[in-house]
Amino acid sequence: MSFERVAIIGLGLQGGSIGLAVQEFLPGVVTTGYDISPEYRARAAERGLVHTVCDTAVEAVQGADLVIFCVPPGAMGEAAAPLREAIPAHALVSDVGSSKQAIAKALGEALPDHLVIPAHPVAGTENSGPDAGFAHLFRNRWCIVTPPEQTDLLKLSALVEFWETLGANVEIMSAQHHDLVLAVTSHLPHLIAYTIVGTASDLEDVTQSEVIKYSAGGFRDFTRIAASDPTMWRDVFLSNKDAVLTMLQRFTEDLTALQRAIRVGDGDMLFDHFARTRAIRRSIIEEGQDDSRPDFGRGDHDGGAGGD
Amino acid sequence: MSFERVAIIGLGLQGGSIGLAVQEFLPGVVTTGYDISPEYRARAAERGLVHTVCDTAVEAVQGADLVIFCVPPGAMGEAAAPLREAIPAHALVSDVGSSKQAIAKALGEALPDHLVIPAHPVAGTENSGPDAGFAHLFRNRWCIVTPPEQTDLLKLSALVEFWETLGANVEIMSAQHHDLVLAVTSHLPHLIAYTIVGTASDLEDVTQSEVIKYSAGGFRDFTRIAASDPTMWRDVFLSNKDAVLTMLQRFTEDLTALQRAIRVGDGDMLFDHFARTRAIRRSIIEEGQDDSRPDFGRGDHDGGAGGD
Repeated sequence: MSFERVAIIGLGLQGGSIGLAVQEFLPGVVTTGYDISPEYRARAAERGLVHTVCDTAVEAVQGADLVIFCVPPGAMGEAAAPLREAIPAHALVSDVGSSKQAIAKALGEALPDHLVIPAHPVAGTENSGPDAGFAHLFRNRWCIVTPPEQTDLLKLSALVEFWETLGANVEIMSAQHHDLVLAVTSHLPHLIAYTIVGTASDLEDVTQSEVIKYSAGGFRDFTRIAASDPTMWRDVFLSNKDAVLTMLQRFTEDLTALQRAIRVGDGDMLFDHFARTRAIRRSIIEEGQDDSRPDFGRGDHDGGAGGD
Repeated sequence: MSFERVAIIGLGLQGGSIGLAVQEFLPGVVTTGYDISPEYRARAAERGLVHTVCDTAVEAVQGADLVIFCVPPGAMGEAAAPLREAIPAHALVSDVGSSKQAIAKALGEALPDHLVIPAHPVAGTENSGPDAGFAHLFRNRWCIVTPPEQTDLLKLSALVEFWETLGANVEIMSAQHHDLVLAVTSHLPHLIAYTIVGTASDLEDVTQSEVIKYSAGGFRDFTRIAASDPTMWRDVFLSNKDAVLTMLQRFTEDLTALQRAIRVGDGDMLFDHFARTRAIRRSIIEEGQDDSRPDFGRGDHDGGAGGD
């Protein structure tokens, strides 16, 4: 089986990118979409993110065989509950949220008569909203699918194929393991980035203008992910609280150890720690998960699209 | 006045870039260079980082009117002391290190008969060594010059002009203020990045392969600066200990506040914090200190030089 009518609820970065990717890679499939914001709907229609932008979510899911919720994690239940009657009984329900246990629970409670197979494409940029999406967002990125223990294997494999057609590599794991893995590869990095950018803006003895001018020393790297959508990230931390707090504790322990090494002047400990982190970056580049050029290939080094 | 013979001690990313930039932007100036590593010297000669790569530092500084030390912060005194007789009395001595109070002291003690005006170009990539340098590294980056209170204004202005000719914007400030500013815009970000990359590699319940696969969720951004030269960064933390520990304490306080907000489910506090960090990135881009394209313009989004 494969999907013929895909409904996308939420037309921001993820929803918009799915809509564009389906039109590019699955040209026979009909796409409908809805967003709670009238401005987003208008802009989504202008950009053609889906074939039809509907005025109500009920309208958008009519006749769909795949409904993908692309709203912030905390809004999933609220977005889904009113659609219990409207979503066709045979339709598969999925999502793109960054935490999977909480979302599986919310969607399951809101749509008790439907099959829900959550998914999470590990792909994005710091931009959000209906102007942020692009068809190739998922290319060579991983999409994690977290099916319930008892599931419809035909629909599961159709969902896997759907994401592969959009360019992603698919991995299947439990929602619990997903939440632990993403806590370290995504949630903790965002929390740290948001923290340090906040710290740097609040100093009395260093001005904000100085922070901005000298940001190329490293700070600017953190500002990218700290520019991500605040609503979504609030929801991610609240919905994956336990795993985030666990990872944060590990991080704090390690930071305290390095802090102590600086205080007592233990250069060997610092050197040993700093020397072993290079290998990870090399592997990430080898696996195609980052740009191999120095400085992420930023355009400001050679007259590209940088801020020159 | 302007410089006619520039000697570069240390031919890694910074030294090599200065050598290449002088040849491009100051074609009349003669450059000599030395590195303690025979392999670096051989490679520097192959790449033509300077006109003449010398076999000894004494030879490299003969007749120089500007000597720039481009060695790790902790090696400055050791590199400079044997050159006390060899560096011409009228020559200006400078450096490119990331901490300025400690380096000013080390160079001042090693070369008590010379005028030392420290400098710090806030520019770099995660790469190091004689293959890492390029002539445009300093373009549109800031170079901070930290002259002693009593200084030779002609030589100071010649040094400012030198850096401006290499493409940098120059700012003059005290070494003490430099160390505080850089602690937040560069040293703390590196420490945090090194920490989180270490934390992620040491988990028992998440494999290293998973960390690498799902790094596009945010983690990969931190691996770039955590791939920087370990010797240099050990020295930076040891030589700017007080300012780094001060900034680290502010960061830890802020992180603890966010941790508490997550634990008690204070979504408003999280949202407010996350919403105000966007403005900083916007300013950094407006000031030409980062690439305006989403995701730093990484090539993996549109068939560029990424890992596809």
